[in-house]
Amino acid sequence: MQSLKETLRTAEEQGVAVGHFNTPVIEMVTAVIDAALSLNVPVVLGFTESERDFFRAQQAVDYVKSVREETGHPIFINADHTYKYENAKRAVELGFDCVIYDAAEKSDDENIQGTKEFVEFARKTNPDVLIEAEYGFIGGGSSIKDEFPEGAAITEDMMTDPEKARQFVEATGCDLLAPAVGNLHGMFKHAANPHLNIDRIRAIRQAAGVPLVLHGGSGISDDDFKQGIAAGIAMVHVSTEMRIAYRSALDKACAADRDQIKPYNLMQPVKEAVQAVVEAKLRLFNNL
Amino acid sequence: MQSLKETLRTAEEQGVAVGHFNTPVIEMVTAVIDAALSLNVPVVLGFTESERDFFRAQQAVDYVKSVREETGHPIFINADHTYKYENAKRAVELGFDCVIYDAAEKSDDENIQGTKEFVEFARKTNPDVLIEAEYGFIGGGSSIKDEFPEGAAITEDMMTDPEKARQFVEATGCDLLAPAVGNLHGMFKHAANPHLNIDRIRAIRQAAGVPLVLHGGSGISDDDFKQGIAAGIAMVHVSTEMRIAYRSALDKACAADRDQIKPYNLMQPVKEAVQAVVEAKLRLFNNL
Repeated sequence: MQSLKETLRTAEEQGVAVGHFNTPVIEMVTAVIDAALSLNVPVVLGFTESERDFFRAQQAVDYVKSVREETGHPIFINADHTYKYENAKRAVELGFDCVIYDAAEKSDDENIQGTKEFVEFARKTNPDVLIEAEYGFIGGGSSIKDEFPEGAAITEDMMTDPEKARQFVEATGCDLLAPAVGNLHGMFKHAANPHLNIDRIRAIRQAAGVPLVLHGGSGISDDDFKQGIAAGIAMVHVSTEMRIAYRSALDKACAADRDQIKPYNLMQPVKEAVQAVVEAKLRLFNNL
Repeated sequence: MQSLKETLRTAEEQGVAVGHFNTPVIEMVTAVIDAALSLNVPVVLGFTESERDFFRAQQAVDYVKSVREETGHPIFINADHTYKYENAKRAVELGFDCVIYDAAEKSDDENIQGTKEFVEFARKTNPDVLIEAEYGFIGGGSSIKDEFPEGAAITEDMMTDPEKARQFVEATGCDLLAPAVGNLHGMFKHAANPHLNIDRIRAIRQAAGVPLVLHGGSGISDDDFKQGIAAGIAMVHVSTEMRIAYRSALDKACAADRDQIKPYNLMQPVKEAVQAVVEAKLRLFNNL
């Protein structure tokens, strides 16, 4: 079976992107797995620090690897947005396929120095783990927000600079880069998410020399996705749209049967609603 | 670390019982684990056929074994009420610590023959797995019911007969026996659950020569539990009370924050409510 590194390379060659979905509860885990199996495409399950705490970090890794072994399907697990350095090291030790050490809110120098040290630690501990770094601030948190996050790169001059991205990758040795190219974490009450800057994506991919990861995939238009993937995005993160589907389906399921106490009956339509969102994104990302 | 077999023997020696809790969703899984860790007592996580389907059977096994290895704590997994013979065989192959092949609704002869064949299969496949059999019908399904289930043993003459239980264990070779001693699956809208027949428990334990498992632990009084455990119950199953706590806390959490879409925030009080139920039962079963 292909490794995550090979899977991303193949995706780039084919002009498609690998979907990454955050899955802190079992209904989301199985929704993503069943979506990937039914469409026969690779997938990455993501767990932020909070999500790892909720599911149990070691068991999240063991669950996903167990599915990969049982099915022979390329299903991977990523330690999403890890802000604490100690947690990032622990994620490597626990066996995550990919770890994001996220120091994008720090100064450039601190981000470069911290990422460089982390990459060195990871190489020594597990030569197979991929390290992703964020370069360019896109705001934090997969939620529905009143306003665009302060300091996030929504104008062209605030987006990731291709030459600086090249220097960042060279200095740190990271495997994957998450740039700021108009994407933002979360969705917004009073405005559509901004458009992606396709030319900037193309320029960063060429300069940086590593696959690019698009965070903040909720709220981006289908057309923007297609162009962004063609321009150099190899992996796309989606979370907020799954969460909205989860909550909406949960409210409906609870209202539909006030006496239902069997969790696997109550939550079945919730799982299916999340799976529908994931399948739609996977079709889009994989040109299906 | 003690095996489940040794854990049950120790419980009998100490006059306590091991708690068994059904956990089809992650909030219940972590609630039971955290309850057992905080009280420092062994515990069994149970998955019926439907619950295995929802969580994924192989991954349920791998999750629980991963926690056991990570914590060094005696946490076990049981393939609860397995009605299909093929599913019972598969549960042995998947690595469950204990498997219940449940043919209690069939004729005595069919129950004995089926259980005997299953025990022979299990011994060949995994010498460490414990096989539990039900002898005496207590109704099916952990829910809130309008009426006592038809055919269930609620009068003394319908309860498991000690001498027949001895013959059943001898003929089948099962490791654990779940008798009908006044216990019923589920809880009831218009009536309290019946009392346990303590003398019958004592007589069955002596005659059968294997540890007894009490199903239908929801709705039984604290005093009945204490007497039943003293008389020979080594493991107690609880499910319905957890489900009621889950649903009630879920309704409260959804009403308390209509905009909350982060599953790990929304479900945290749900997990805590289930954990409170589990901790109360574990205190009772373990004389804490």
